[in-house]
Amino acid sequence: MNNRVRFAACLTDRAARFLTVWKPQAVQPVPELYWEDFTPGRVFTHGPRRLSREEMVGFAAEFDPQPMHLDEEAARATMMGGLCASGWLSCCILMRMCADGFLLRSSSMGAPGVDEVKWLAAIRPGDEVTLRATVLDSRTSKSRPEMGFVRFNFELFNVGGDCVMVLTTSLMMGRREKTAS
Amino acid sequence: MNNRVRFAACLTDRAARFLTVWKPQAVQPVPELYWEDFTPGRVFTHGPRRLSREEMVGFAAEFDPQPMHLDEEAARATMMGGLCASGWLSCCILMRMCADGFLLRSSSMGAPGVDEVKWLAAIRPGDEVTLRATVLDSRTSKSRPEMGFVRFNFELFNVGGDCVMVLTTSLMMGRREKTAS
Repeated sequence: MNNRVRFAACLTDRAARFLTVWKPQAVQPVPELYWEDFTPGRVFTHGPRRLSREEMVGFAAEFDPQPMHLDEEAARATMMGGLCASGWLSCCILMRMCADGFLLRSSSMGAPGVDEVKWLAAIRPGDEVTLRATVLDSRTSKSRPEMGFVRFNFELFNVGGDCVMVLTTSLMMGRREKTAS
Repeated sequence: MNNRVRFAACLTDRAARFLTVWKPQAVQPVPELYWEDFTPGRVFTHGPRRLSREEMVGFAAEFDPQPMHLDEEAARATMMGGLCASGWLSCCILMRMCADGFLLRSSSMGAPGVDEVKWLAAIRPGDEVTLRATVLDSRTSKSRPEMGFVRFNFELFNVGGDCVMVLTTSLMMGRREKTAS
């Protein structure tokens, strides 16, 4: 626990708060949601979540130091016309909203990749986004009968109701009935 | 500058160092690389870049708090068999390596999305990754004659030479000859 607290001190406030209260065994209790529960058309929502200027600029300085994500004045000279979040920050926020919205109470085993991402509109400092995760379809795994794949369409909306981002991918989920298909 | 230093104090060391030395006007001098320079088959490399346990866990606590990214013991019970980097951290590291490798000296205008991401193998604490960016093809923009698209295949390799991640996408690049096609 000492190491955890010491380490947390060099992280962002949000990450630090999470790590100091998080217990490894608390994250994976018996899942509430299994592969069988992700039926086509089922929708999960989460949010809203505000993105601050500080978060956008801090993330960009670390991972995506392009002028439109770093500095208001420099950003005005770009095609974006002003400071906006890195598309990768949008992906990371979407990931966290999925985790808080339903993944951490599911039998999720991660994902082998991402099918497609579309950044449709800029996310500006102070914007709030809401997640909508829609199950598109699902299938069992031939090589691993204990799991299946669930394909999702993830969308982030701003307060005006515009979809600012779409991400499509399949997640691996443990099956409640662990029998071969 | 005071605001920049104050803000930098709450970021990771790496982001803070970057922000305190970065000058907005220093990032977009006259680009060295334009759309015309990204000819099919051209390759850019960068790295190696080490990923520490602290970085992996800190990122996960902020954006992807699943047990395989947060805690060694909890991670052993998962399909990953031990602590590994979030796939989103791999994407962010790849983005930063592209920026440092060639993007910040190019006429890049960002990207409309991502075509595909494949996370092929786990990145473990202490692993070093190297970037290889290969130009697949390019085309001009019909609606914006001042720019074109360059489609890249981005790969991250570990020290053993295994490809641990592939990302395919098109970047928007300013054209040296800003005439309509």
